[in-house]
Amino acid sequence: MTKPGLLIVFSGPSGAGKDTVLKRFLDENPDCALSVSATTRAPREGEVDGENYFFITRERFGELTAMGEMLEYAYYNGNYYGTPKDMVEEQRARGKNVILEIEVQGALKIKEMGIDAVFIFLMPPSWKTLKQRLANRNTDSPWNVAERLNIAVTEMESAHLYDYIVVNDDLDACTAQMKAVVAAAQCRAEYCRELVEEVLRDAQTIHVSDN
Amino acid sequence: MTKPGLLIVFSGPSGAGKDTVLKRFLDENPDCALSVSATTRAPREGEVDGENYFFITRERFGELTAMGEMLEYAYYNGNYYGTPKDMVEEQRARGKNVILEIEVQGALKIKEMGIDAVFIFLMPPSWKTLKQRLANRNTDSPWNVAERLNIAVTEMESAHLYDYIVVNDDLDACTAQMKAVVAAAQCRAEYCRELVEEVLRDAQTIHVSDN
Repeated sequence: MTKPGLLIVFSGPSGAGKDTVLKRFLDENPDCALSVSATTRAPREGEVDGENYFFITRERFGELTAMGEMLEYAYYNGNYYGTPKDMVEEQRARGKNVILEIEVQGALKIKEMGIDAVFIFLMPPSWKTLKQRLANRNTDSPWNVAERLNIAVTEMESAHLYDYIVVNDDLDACTAQMKAVVAAAQCRAEYCRELVEEVLRDAQTIHVSDN
Repeated sequence: MTKPGLLIVFSGPSGAGKDTVLKRFLDENPDCALSVSATTRAPREGEVDGENYFFITRERFGELTAMGEMLEYAYYNGNYYGTPKDMVEEQRARGKNVILEIEVQGALKIKEMGIDAVFIFLMPPSWKTLKQRLANRNTDSPWNVAERLNIAVTEMESAHLYDYIVVNDDLDACTAQMKAVVAAAQCRAEYCRELVEEVLRDAQTIHVSDN
């Protein structure tokens, strides 16, 4: 029987390098996969249903949330975005460790729900680095950068609520930390309960003096 | 400033391979060190004070326990054995991750005391393997093997009280698991609090629009 995969919740402020870290991490760890979100927004050119997003109608989105079928969801810029439970569970049942890259608010909701997950927060190595990274993104206006920095502060104020903090200073070191956290999560005592129970069961049935 | 090392409590039944795993792990991880116990028993030939044990008198041992200076201690075969707090703290202050290889009872006492430590339990891959490993130790009489197996069952019944369970099936895989657990423990959110506080402090003092 395949051991079910972990649910990994991954957050961090804009500019911490979430996408870069995840890309590298997923390249090196084929037992992990990014969760695919559902959205009510229209597909952009080149986007594939079930790969970039599950593109669903507002009606369907409403049904899923009403039935408690969304792990978390958010309304952003006129559209709904959410994580369908069944998609995550189906991947985990096949032994994949599923990574949810979500905002702090969504992550804390999942934590409050008592869902068993590994919560990882990606930190920049310093405030200066975060500012520089955001300033170097030419896509953002100065106002936008200031706004992102304000949000970053709010998000980092919740970092201590996560299980683990990995620091994106050096990309190699950071992905190695992620890998260690995921490997260690698979060694958590509750995750290994079945093996312990099996050995103890055998201890009762296979008599000490048998050979 | 050096970050203080972790306290790692390591237990497992006789025959699980604690010494083999630890030897390999310590060879590969020079940032970790085994704690040196204090004992009231006389040194055996070749044993070095401060290396194999701290050899102390019964009076001194009594003083240290009375002053709460022992992290844990036990009476075994006519002698006392214990872990002196100051030795552990001195090593941790120098950044070493200190490993305490102790019995389940001592480990659970440390846990009850609320001491911040990483609790790792070493499991054999199966009951059959554990039996074989103990039977192959020619030093033990059959009665002794049976006794050790009974104790092993009692100990494994407490495995779920540890933070992590590592399985000694393949030595390479097992030491890799230990390494991941220690690396992940260094990423625990409470262990990284200082970095987060520093970044948030800088966010207040270095104004958003500064360059």
